[in-house]
Amino acid sequence: MTDERAVQQVLAKYVRGSDARDGAAVAAQFAPNGRVEIFYSNSGKLEPLGELVGQDAIAGAVAHMMSPHPPRGWSHHTTHDPIIEINGDEAQMDAQFIVFSVIGKERPSTGWPEGATGAQGTVTPIESGYYRPTLRRIDGVWKFETLRIVLDMPVAFPG
Amino acid sequence: MTDERAVQQVLAKYVRGSDARDGAAVAAQFAPNGRVEIFYSNSGKLEPLGELVGQDAIAGAVAHMMSPHPPRGWSHHTTHDPIIEINGDEAQMDAQFIVFSVIGKERPSTGWPEGATGAQGTVTPIESGYYRPTLRRIDGVWKFETLRIVLDMPVAFPG
Amino acid sequence: MTDERAVQQVLAKYVRGSDARDGAAVAAQFAPNGRVEIFYSNSGKLEPLGELVGQDAIAGAVAHMMSPHPPRGWSHHTTHDPIIEINGDEAQMDAQFIVFSVIGKERPSTGWPEGATGAQGTVTPIESGYYRPTLRRIDGVWKFETLRIVLDMPVAFPG
Repeated sequence: MTDERAVQQVLAKYVRGSDARDGAAVAAQFAPNGRVEIFYSNSGKLEPLGELVGQDAIAGAVAHMMSPHPPRGWSHHTTHDPIIEINGDEAQMDAQFIVFSVIGKERPSTGWPEGATGAQGTVTPIESGYYRPTLRRIDGVWKFETLRIVLDMPVAFPG
Repeated sequence: MTDERAVQQVLAKYVRGSDARDGAAVAAQFAPNGRVEIFYSNSGKLEPLGELVGQDAIAGAVAHMMSPHPPRGWSHHTTHDPIIEINGDEAQMDAQFIVFSVIGKERPSTGWPEGATGAQGTVTPIESGYYRPTLRRIDGVWKFETLRIVLDMPVAFPG
Repeated sequence: MTDERAVQQVLAKYVRGSDARDGAAVAAQFAPNGRVEIFYSNSGKLEPLGELVGQDAIAGAVAHMMSPHPPRGWSHHTTHDPIIEINGDEAQMDAQFIVFSVIGKERPSTGWPEGATGAQGTVTPIESGYYRPTLRRIDGVWKFETLRIVLDMPVAFPG
């Protein structure tokens, strides 16, 4: 496998873990001392929203800070058009992302209504931005050192 | 071309054929005895929705079971973040997908209304899930053996 | 880096430049005499919408013909499922694209409303189609010779 493909696959496993709300799977994509830095790009000016340091903090945030899926709900963190630069055992990537929220309808006890056809529910894009990680090859395996997440939109925190 | 890229291109040609409702182009991505297995992931539990076995059945389903595009309509089956594993002449992939339905507006005989600008119509995400194929290299060309399609939302069948 | 990855990265830099409305960054992905050809696919029949010839014309169009982003606005030109063919120093690619328009909400002076959580604003798919470039390797670097853009929907031009 090429280094570029291996690096892309770290991000692919990260988004799979995020969608499954699987903290351990997400944390496993990071170096032991890896970190996540979250920013809101306010007309290009980066405003820090939060930071997670170390695999335990990252795993905990996935499990406890991401909203659980509602019934028949799922999400897709999708990434696009990575620009990757490899230098020996160091790499950096810039990828676009769009998050989709999916809510399936519940099948009525009397069956789907007359004329209903195809997938029943909604697929809605709700978030977007850029993933800008740096990676390091550790014992032959690429891991995130720092994953910078740059959000296009401001974020409201509950409570 | 790397094996990983070749495998991705099988999926790329599959989605192109699907959007063109071109049964032969879709079937050509499968081994002669290839199959499609469709499931609905009901809160993680896979409920079988259907199965197609062999290139003829697959070509027929694309031509006759997928809805034809309406006037000025098109679709985009888009795939994201593939995780690929190659073992000799066998491969497996896990890719996210989002399907978009596109409907262009008809240009009024009096021209577009005052102030209209840019693309005229709607682009709507309508389906999502995962493609989880296994592939085999046959005479040097990668083909789907089994394409498992896992839908996030339940499906209503007409009639 | 493989040729296929290098070719994908030309497109990745093109869409980054488009989203940043950075004419120079977009033009730098083209050969000096490169061109952009824009078509509307009217039920499969290609209707020409416009053509740009040379890096200066391309840079000028990005800077002056694309709408500037509104306050708290951004766009994502995302591409999907490239089919790439390399022949020595020539390449061609076919990629799907979806354009998303992003508008963040302005934080009320009294703070986000009770119960607001997550990203505040909208992410809307507004355009789609295919990028079908030909590329040439010039002094070791892949550049667009001709970028054919095929839009799924008709376009209204202001004024």
